Amino acid sequence: MNLDRFSINQMTVKQLALPELVAECVRLGIPGIGLWREPVQAYGVEAAAALVRGAGLTVTTLCRGGFFTADGWEAENRAAIDEAVTLGTDTLVLVSGGLTPACPDLPSARTRITEAIGALAPYAGERGIRLAIEPLHPMYASDRCAVSTLDQALEIAEHFPASQVGVTVDTYHLWWDDRAPGAVERAGAAGRIHSFQLADWTTPLPAGVLNGRGQLGTGAIDLRAWADLAEKAGWTGPVEVELFNDELWARDGVEVLEETLDRFLAV
Amino acid sequence: MNLDRFSINQMTVKQLALPELVAECVRLGIPGIGLWREPVQAYGVEAAAALVRGAGLTVTTLCRGGFFTADGWEAENRAAIDEAVTLGTDTLVLVSGGLTPACPDLPSARTRITEAIGALAPYAGERGIRLAIEPLHPMYASDRCAVSTLDQALEIAEHFPASQVGVTVDTYHLWWDDRAPGAVERAGAAGRIHSFQLADWTTPLPAGVLNGRGQLGTGAIDLRAWADLAEKAGWTGPVEVELFNDELWARDGVEVLEETLDRFLAV
Repeated sequence: MNLDRFSINQMTVKQLALPELVAECVRLGIPGIGLWREPVQAYGVEAAAALVRGAGLTVTTLCRGGFFTADGWEAENRAAIDEAVTLGTDTLVLVSGGLTPACPDLPSARTRITEAIGALAPYAGERGIRLAIEPLHPMYASDRCAVSTLDQALEIAEHFPASQVGVTVDTYHLWWDDRAPGAVERAGAAGRIHSFQLADWTTPLPAGVLNGRGQLGTGAIDLRAWADLAEKAGWTGPVEVELFNDELWARDGVEVLEETLDRFLAV
Repeated sequence: MNLDRFSINQMTVKQLALPELVAECVRLGIPGIGLWREPVQAYGVEAAAALVRGAGLTVTTLCRGGFFTADGWEAENRAAIDEAVTLGTDTLVLVSGGLTPACPDLPSARTRITEAIGALAPYAGERGIRLAIEPLHPMYASDRCAVSTLDQALEIAEHFPASQVGVTVDTYHLWWDDRAPGAVERAGAAGRIHSFQLADWTTPLPAGVLNGRGQLGTGAIDLRAWADLAEKAGWTGPVEVELFNDELWARDGVEVLEETLDRFLAV
């Protein structure tokens, strides 16, 4: 893939402080960056916005809103939308939340998620922010995200205008699903792919299964086939690399960034 | 659920030697047992068959055949079918295998699995053994089983007579899938539910994600709803409890067996 499509998600090299990451992006010609709320808040939202704007970087997404099955979701998500506006991105990624006392089973969780997105979509749309529902791998269904397939995410998104609500296509979460290619096509045709992310699938999974996302090309996923799929579905936007990986985090951040870029170009 | 439906899978209490497990089943009035090839081979297949037959137990399944993407699958699976015959069960559970050098992606693995089952089905059918394709949770797609949904398992099974090939419905692997209830209905109507197994979903998952299956009633799955679903689909056969769980294995086996029975009756 070409450099002009590349976006580095901040979490991939979370050992780099934001100014260092931004400087390295400029040095390497990386055009895009995906940001996370917590480190951005720690740095200061306005300051982060000025930093990336000054460097000429495109903020491809803000991660993340969601967790709609927990108390306090509405204020939290309005704040996330406001931060997205400040940071100059047009896309807020949503991790929708798992089972809670208020939503003790998957059907009730999915109902709550749909209602919550309905309450937020106009607020987001008025501010030029697209909500991108991210289906997470089914192994997160109980504790992080009751939306497990792209079909489910699309089904929720289709209640709302595409300019307000779409989906995040992340290879790590979807690669196993033989129905996902059809759903990517459908999402593309409806203009609902709002983010496309790459990570590879490696085993054995670590305890807690959060921080074992594989570096591109080290795992089971045919990433080239997924890139072709997204392209055929009309996706011409940035391709974000988002890896949560304890081994990568333990290494020198600049080295990991360079390696990730090389791997991306080789896909 | 009623005691007369209960079957204890040997792996749930693998700390119990087979004679002890059989004696405890008799003492507790447990009518069914699911066996595994490795411990049965270690005990002696003929001896194990005599032991369970003498105790009046029904062998509800033999686990497991499969791993069709690895070399040597054919001889291994014919041997498994022969062992099933000796043990007096009518059902061999199949864990179909993940990605290998010969089948490096999911489509090629699924093609191989379909072909392999086609080669085995008549051999099984002639011997009164039903092959029960078990879809495993998508988190095992790369290293254990490229068949991740009940729809996929059924799609493969439907190439063959129901008397030869059907599916295993295991709540642990399927609970997250909003399409699974429809597939259970379809499987039942076609007479293709050949095994029904219960385990609960608990988090955090342990490293390697193999041995974290939850004791009934301790996790996220509405097991009563699944039992109703299977019953509505026409399943009147045994309900096997198969838990792989390091914490349960570290405890006294008889205590775990009694607890599992109590939990089953409470579902």
